[in-house]
Amino acid sequence: MSVLHPSPIQALYDTLSAEMHQVNLLTLERLKSQVNLVEQVGRHIVMGGGKRIRPLLTLACNRLFQNKPGFAVHLASAVELIHTATLLHDDVVDESHMRRGKRTANDLWGNNASVLVGDFLFSRAFQLMVETENLGVLESLANAAAKITEGEVLQLTSAYSLDLSAQTYFEIISAKTAALFASSCEVGGMIAKMSPDLRPHLYGFGHSLGMMFQIQDDILDYMSDSASSGKTIGLDFFEGKVTLPVILAYQKGTDTAFWESHFQGQTTEDPRDLEKAISLFEDNNIFGQCREMAGHYQEKALENLDKLPRSQIWNDLKNLIGYSLDRQF
Amino acid sequence: MSVLHPSPIQALYDTLSAEMHQVNLLTLERLKSQVNLVEQVGRHIVMGGGKRIRPLLTLACNRLFQNKPGFAVHLASAVELIHTATLLHDDVVDESHMRRGKRTANDLWGNNASVLVGDFLFSRAFQLMVETENLGVLESLANAAAKITEGEVLQLTSAYSLDLSAQTYFEIISAKTAALFASSCEVGGMIAKMSPDLRPHLYGFGHSLGMMFQIQDDILDYMSDSASSGKTIGLDFFEGKVTLPVILAYQKGTDTAFWESHFQGQTTEDPRDLEKAISLFEDNNIFGQCREMAGHYQEKALENLDKLPRSQIWNDLKNLIGYSLDRQF
Repeated sequence: MSVLHPSPIQALYDTLSAEMHQVNLLTLERLKSQVNLVEQVGRHIVMGGGKRIRPLLTLACNRLFQNKPGFAVHLASAVELIHTATLLHDDVVDESHMRRGKRTANDLWGNNASVLVGDFLFSRAFQLMVETENLGVLESLANAAAKITEGEVLQLTSAYSLDLSAQTYFEIISAKTAALFASSCEVGGMIAKMSPDLRPHLYGFGHSLGMMFQIQDDILDYMSDSASSGKTIGLDFFEGKVTLPVILAYQKGTDTAFWESHFQGQTTEDPRDLEKAISLFEDNNIFGQCREMAGHYQEKALENLDKLPRSQIWNDLKNLIGYSLDRQF
Repeated sequence: MSVLHPSPIQALYDTLSAEMHQVNLLTLERLKSQVNLVEQVGRHIVMGGGKRIRPLLTLACNRLFQNKPGFAVHLASAVELIHTATLLHDDVVDESHMRRGKRTANDLWGNNASVLVGDFLFSRAFQLMVETENLGVLESLANAAAKITEGEVLQLTSAYSLDLSAQTYFEIISAKTAALFASSCEVGGMIAKMSPDLRPHLYGFGHSLGMMFQIQDDILDYMSDSASSGKTIGLDFFEGKVTLPVILAYQKGTDTAFWESHFQGQTTEDPRDLEKAISLFEDNNIFGQCREMAGHYQEKALENLDKLPRSQIWNDLKNLIGYSLDRQF
């Protein structure tokens, strides 16, 4: 990342670095366990990188309403732990071996440890939430957690078929991704005792941002980026997971034989198939169409943010909206 | 079960049948999901039988202090959902194919569905807890949930070796079983606004009862019961899981070659090995010794119960203590 032009995520991180340091310390403290393997697996995954976008959103939305974070630190740690728990379980469900350029926990310690440590992180998240003694945030995050799992199951039962409609795709990403983005924003404001009128706007802002992030993630899975080394592409493709670019390309009605042979036949690991898919996307401006659909969420994110009080952090959040559809990683 | 001499569990069920009916209705309602598979798997496991001892304890401990259950129904449903979620994840971890005489969810729908639906049930449990708006019960159950997962990981890392000490065995069952028994009892009283002085006694009663139940479960895994058809024995043995009977038998120092060849070599599925294990237990009065160790918890359970107010349900709970070490199923 360039120092002269930091990404909006980096800008948020810079503004909130003191609070994020507290979040990291608190998270490390709560990963402690008398059972060695729990701590080992937990540290591997929680400290394993990632953009930390959810805890940053909690802290940023908190900063919109107050200067000292207070229990927002607990909530930021909790949302990252919930997210991390779902990653551990996802890797078991997807039988993944690599994440963020590292071997996955299930690859290193087996599915068993991943399932159980995921449960542990989830419980630790709830303990942190309970400590805030705020029933509203408990409700918001418990609802988000239930939504995430419903989204994951819907993905499991629907997303491996070319029958997947754009509508069901949006339902899936709304539940599995946008719900936690929305709650991460909402609870940051709630714990700051903002006016309850603003709650739907924080939620709406976070939800729209989550939709945009997931759409861009699904695009990036098909975009090679020679500048950033070690980026693996085609994970969804080789796993047979149907995402928005595939839905839109398949709906064109041309090259249906290619899509059907890959997603309905024996999914191959042939890199030439991935190249072919990418060139079909490019030839048909599929990424442009995806971004156009995401533009709807961009508008909603801006509309909701517009209702929230202006400040430096507000500007950072506004920049984040624009960046969500441009980011390359 | 004989009608003339109902078991203490049946007696509790009879006394609390109206409340248990509410618990079942509420649980079924909360299993509803727009995602069909979630509901299907959830119903399979939640309605798949089992003794329902945890929700009965919540309702019974509530009845010690008030006549109308109120939110105790929510909590009883929540503890059963937490328990059920751990069963779903356990079956993935243990790679089990049968539970309670039925095929397991992972066998029917795959590990993926079991992991995700387990997460869903866990989230639903937290939603129910949040609805009670009682931060004390949220704290108690969040702590229990974290303990359970630590216990499961400790079991995973320690319980497949003959090095397992009785002390570590008791640590494991305290976390994986007794913690939720304890919290199930405690929250039943807390939601009835009992005097806070009594909280440790409800917790201590439930914890001791949980220890006794798990020890008896581990004994019953080695006891054939010709009367109850379809009971499978030797699950722990064939899985290579070391439990109290094995620890005590191995510590005798006789027949160590047999135990080492089974638990350190390639674990076989030979029924003659199981017969040999059982006859060694019988020859050395191992089950008697296990029950003697459990007697310590029996005393503690009685001591704690003694501090709680007398009533019909109190008598039922007292009978349950005695029964815990005699039950045959």
